[in-house]
Amino acid sequence: MSDTREQILEQIKVQGDLVRQLKTAKESKEKIDEEVARLLALKAKLGGDAAPANQKFTLKTPKGTRDYGPQQMTLRQGVLDKIIQVFKRHGGEAIDTPVFELKEVLTGKYGEDSKLIYDLKDQGGEILSMRYDLTVPLARYLAMNKISSIKRYHIAKVYRRDNPAMTKGRYREFYQCDFDIAGTYDPMLADAECVKIVAEILDTLDIGDYVIKLNHRQLLDGMFQACGVPAESFRTICSAVDKLDKSPWADVRKEMVTEKGLDEVAADRIGEYVRLSGGAELVEQLLADEKLKAVPNAVKGLEGMQLLLKYCSIFGLDKRVSFDLSLARGLDYYTGVIYEGVLKGESAAVGSPAKTSQQNGEQANEPATVGSVAGGGRYDNLVGMFDPRGKAVPCVGVSIGVERIFSVLEARAAASGLKLRTSDVEVYVASAHKGLHEQRLKVLNQLWDAGVKAEHSYKLNPKLLGQLQHCEEHQIPLVVVLGDAELAQGLVKLREVTTRQETNVKLEDLAAEIRRRQQAA
Amino acid sequence: MSDTREQILEQIKVQGDLVRQLKTAKESKEKIDEEVARLLALKAKLGGDAAPANQKFTLKTPKGTRDYGPQQMTLRQGVLDKIIQVFKRHGGEAIDTPVFELKEVLTGKYGEDSKLIYDLKDQGGEILSMRYDLTVPLARYLAMNKISSIKRYHIAKVYRRDNPAMTKGRYREFYQCDFDIAGTYDPMLADAECVKIVAEILDTLDIGDYVIKLNHRQLLDGMFQACGVPAESFRTICSAVDKLDKSPWADVRKEMVTEKGLDEVAADRIGEYVRLSGGAELVEQLLADEKLKAVPNAVKGLEGMQLLLKYCSIFGLDKRVSFDLSLARGLDYYTGVIYEGVLKGESAAVGSPAKTSQQNGEQANEPATVGSVAGGGRYDNLVGMFDPRGKAVPCVGVSIGVERIFSVLEARAAASGLKLRTSDVEVYVASAHKGLHEQRLKVLNQLWDAGVKAEHSYKLNPKLLGQLQHCEEHQIPLVVVLGDAELAQGLVKLREVTTRQETNVKLEDLAAEIRRRQQAA
Repeated sequence: MSDTREQILEQIKVQGDLVRQLKTAKESKEKIDEEVARLLALKAKLGGDAAPANQKFTLKTPKGTRDYGPQQMTLRQGVLDKIIQVFKRHGGEAIDTPVFELKEVLTGKYGEDSKLIYDLKDQGGEILSMRYDLTVPLARYLAMNKISSIKRYHIAKVYRRDNPAMTKGRYREFYQCDFDIAGTYDPMLADAECVKIVAEILDTLDIGDYVIKLNHRQLLDGMFQACGVPAESFRTICSAVDKLDKSPWADVRKEMVTEKGLDEVAADRIGEYVRLSGGAELVEQLLADEKLKAVPNAVKGLEGMQLLLKYCSIFGLDKRVSFDLSLARGLDYYTGVIYEGVLKGESAAVGSPAKTSQQNGEQANEPATVGSVAGGGRYDNLVGMFDPRGKAVPCVGVSIGVERIFSVLEARAAASGLKLRTSDVEVYVASAHKGLHEQRLKVLNQLWDAGVKAEHSYKLNPKLLGQLQHCEEHQIPLVVVLGDAELAQGLVKLREVTTRQETNVKLEDLAAEIRRRQQAA
Repeated sequence: MSDTREQILEQIKVQGDLVRQLKTAKESKEKIDEEVARLLALKAKLGGDAAPANQKFTLKTPKGTRDYGPQQMTLRQGVLDKIIQVFKRHGGEAIDTPVFELKEVLTGKYGEDSKLIYDLKDQGGEILSMRYDLTVPLARYLAMNKISSIKRYHIAKVYRRDNPAMTKGRYREFYQCDFDIAGTYDPMLADAECVKIVAEILDTLDIGDYVIKLNHRQLLDGMFQACGVPAESFRTICSAVDKLDKSPWADVRKEMVTEKGLDEVAADRIGEYVRLSGGAELVEQLLADEKLKAVPNAVKGLEGMQLLLKYCSIFGLDKRVSFDLSLARGLDYYTGVIYEGVLKGESAAVGSPAKTSQQNGEQANEPATVGSVAGGGRYDNLVGMFDPRGKAVPCVGVSIGVERIFSVLEARAAASGLKLRTSDVEVYVASAHKGLHEQRLKVLNQLWDAGVKAEHSYKLNPKLLGQLQHCEEHQIPLVVVLGDAELAQGLVKLREVTTRQETNVKLEDLAAEIRRRQQAA
């Protein structure tokens, strides 16, 4: 037997009280959501418009994702426009690829991170996965279309089933802005330009002091060899080194020895190298290092680094770059130079004193820089993995971590209390009194056809004060006020919102007058 | 025991011959792909760079999707920029939502089309689906954030597991450009503005003659009632009417009667109405129709149509709109005005003589207009379906079918043979002889820092002719030619690519001189 309406109302009251108590007690969101769901289910039993039957779920976006409202979109578009401008300054062409790929395309490209790939349900047909980055799709695109050289940028969302940390800008759906140079060229010319691009972007975005860390996968491999790491463990030990930006050396060492079975002596040798960072003088020092100079890979990596630092110097980046042996980058596919742009202490959300000098001792225990906002490197074999004949197209590229940049800028905007304008409306068409809505439509039509950005109230007879308030709230600079008296003479009032100055303008000259004022402003 | 290298080489030869035979015989792609995969697997057994082990799959994008190369991106960005300009002219603000939603959000919103939704695999956690349009995510966004009025646009990809017809611009992953007005307003003011927006966009894109068909869901329901359709069959009969743009009336009638169990007399009555189209005079005629004027829904729909046509007339759209009783729109959630912008005969890919007059007889047997490129309508109850209290936010909106527009413009571009410029490079920095790469980097750095779009060869010592050819191929207007003789005097040669005119310019004035020429051009 079902409950009476009165019984349900009583249950709703009790459940409502419970939800309020949980909220007051600041219980976990999951617990509150659960009880809210129960409350909604009770309300649904009442039926009627007030409780739609299908509202049984929590109203939210998927875990690790978010909506962008107009304020966030305006900020975001501003950032992306500046990044695109830099990409175009270096001759970048745009491409786009589908949001999902055949699952096989992604298989074997991401090493330990593969478990974070989103798969689509098998609904009959191809087996698909969401793209994990923009680099593997680029390689697939180049191989598929037999393109052997391109300088392309790609701005799009990628997907990772990672543990989200949304206040720090770490999402499961997030934008990447990639610039890559593909082609068989002379050493380090394209690589150095990518580093320059990172610097130009971070400069133009003005998000605070930063450093671009540089390293070389060949040097890392050579260093591992010199330290006595078996060749088959290079990638997994490299993954461990990659964690040094988040974990202290003691933890990373433990992972190497306990989980990955590395010899303790080898681990300690690695520990000596990865605390080194500096400039050209560090390259010199390492080229003279007895253990390294015996390993051809290490020497090649160091020579590459020497050339890269020289070109970076020509590009005016001496104070921006730091050769850093602890930089490893997680992804499997890098084969040469790797780099990462990081915000220094105070610029990033979680701050600690910035490291600037070479060999500053216990780097691992006091993470010197926080907030990676750009990263990339050279990957010469990825395209060949897709080509039926294994034809290689050497590539180097950079990916800008814009979500982190958005977070920093959003936090700054919130702190300043300033509201961005989210629409471009130049003029609002208002009625001074009743019965003018058709006149408004005529004036609007005239303005729109002349290309003027204009809007009005969708009420037949809105109050004048309300219309003027709308303009102030939305920072619309001009209002056209229609009234029978002026219209009878073919005139309208044009009012500046901030100064409240009013002028009568001939209806036929209105669009031209608005243009004139916009240009003068 | 594994085969010897020689045995494998022999197998590769045999398999290669088989593949060639299949290709010559023009066997099905599936069969050829299968044998190619076998061939690649054999080659992989040989190991080495020439045969990567993981190349066992066909190199393609998922069914119904495509890559956009630089040419297509340039065209597409041009179209999207024009559309955004129109949206902004009407005060639109941008928002964005995640590419997937909780599956429950999409459930029960799309009627018979729900089977086309892409689901994500259950990898532990929430059950997700790819967005099917931008309208349901908007409604979820409004309800979740308790927003009761907004004028927003959203340009993003949506996903439908439909049968692709890629030459006609029908894809499984495709762009939608949506503009919607949410809020409680007076009748038809926002609706008419959406129709105006469609007209402005189709005008500015200049893709040929078009008509915007208008109808009203309340009128359709009233008409179904007047024809004797039971109320519970309104939506399914409406879905059948929606097929009239692709199928002749005889087929649609058969679906109604045979599949959906509609009375034959009722079907024939519907057949009479759905062949009507026209303007304000048709509204008058139907308001006097004995059967319709007895049904309140029909009268309300007709009165709404009357007001809409009046506002459209003020917006100068008399020749652009056509009240068309065969227009039904597939989606379940519409509650009022519906509209669709269609390219007429010759503008669309598949052309047939265009219908312009009222009551043109056997409409169904000769589809009058082809190529829907925009559609939308009013949906007053969708947001309420997400609100815990069922609070309604009335909405009206329009979606531009840009893929179809891209197809038309791509076909036109291909026919013209013109190549769009895909990069914005203003100046190329060239070496006249060997040994100048560091000088090039210095000059480039100076130009980039001054905001000039510049590039060079990533070869140390490229041939001058090759560098000049690159500029001609890529339509780069200016070249800076470096040579020791000029550099010794602090000069560089600035060359116009088309005229081949050369001037010596002081290195320190180079950026300013390039700016000056760009402005003069």
